[in-house]
Amino acid sequence: MSLAPWRSPLARALHRNRSRPYSRYPQFATVRPDGRPANRTIVFRDFEAETNRLMFISDRRSDKLEHLKINPYAELCWYFTQTREQFRLGGKVAILETVGKEAESDQMRQKVWEKISDKARQQFAWPHPGKPRVSEGYESVELDEQTPLDTFIVLMLDPDIVDHLELRGEPQNRYQYQRQSDGSWKSLEVNP
Amino acid sequence: MSLAPWRSPLARALHRNRSRPYSRYPQFATVRPDGRPANRTIVFRDFEAETNRLMFISDRRSDKLEHLKINPYAELCWYFTQTREQFRLGGKVAILETVGKEAESDQMRQKVWEKISDKARQQFAWPHPGKPRVSEGYESVELDEQTPLDTFIVLMLDPDIVDHLELRGEPQNRYQYQRQSDGSWKSLEVNP
Repeated sequence: MSLAPWRSPLARALHRNRSRPYSRYPQFATVRPDGRPANRTIVFRDFEAETNRLMFISDRRSDKLEHLKINPYAELCWYFTQTREQFRLGGKVAILETVGKEAESDQMRQKVWEKISDKARQQFAWPHPGKPRVSEGYESVELDEQTPLDTFIVLMLDPDIVDHLELRGEPQNRYQYQRQSDGSWKSLEVNP
Repeated sequence: MSLAPWRSPLARALHRNRSRPYSRYPQFATVRPDGRPANRTIVFRDFEAETNRLMFISDRRSDKLEHLKINPYAELCWYFTQTREQFRLGGKVAILETVGKEAESDQMRQKVWEKISDKARQQFAWPHPGKPRVSEGYESVELDEQTPLDTFIVLMLDPDIVDHLELRGEPQNRYQYQRQSDGSWKSLEVNP
């Protein structure tokens, strides 16, 4: 598979903004079961090798899992503060949670689990997120580096539409990328 | 009307992060007519005096206007990079666009128009946003400081649910605020 044409400007933005850790914390919008939008910050992990899919991790008990199981679409909004540019990436999200059923997705989940820090892993053993606060259950526990907890989910966003806005132009520059039914991409320069 | 209990932590975050201009650029999610989420960065202008409504400006020709006319709900995600805390504010959005019909909303529109810079006003005279790029139409034009262009819209987000997450705690701290049917607010500390 060839890389989509928006990969190179996005890679450039990630590189140019790399001194600011929060350049890897975009906002991830989903739709709630009642039809209202939801929006939260998420940590971008990486691209899946040789694909255009973006990887995130999440807790199985979080609201966004419930949303994605009913409506699998998300839109990521990524504002880079140093270069003053925005990427919006919309598409379907695959949920990797199957344990011992689909070998491929299970391997991927395990690979990501091995890669994250113990501190990040600990959070998946914490009490149910969003439920009334309890005081116990936050102490550090021993976790197997090779066996993800059941609460550990990998999300894969597969964008089919991308909008790139550069605020620094005079006037600003804006580009749209749309995936076609044959998998190729159509690029278009649009008014900001 | 009394200020909601989330106003004080939000004011504190705005104050503590004021040295970074992008602390006023949260992400605004809506739902598209086809049911997919949309997400983009928006500039927070101010609170409407003596209310809990947040003001934004927008172009009548932008996608979000089309979305809000069909589904009036939005969720704002506001990540403060210096203090490492997030506010999510969900609620209905009122669109102030009426010209010469509803005196009150029209006055508000005019007040906001007067307050923004000439550079910000000029953008409302630019070619149709999102349409294929044209080279003409970006030159500066003379605009009346007291008469908003027809393309100029004020959006008012009236949150009924707010989620505040402080990443700096050990473990993190998270609070939820829900508006009750009598207009009062219920606060709850929840698991992060």
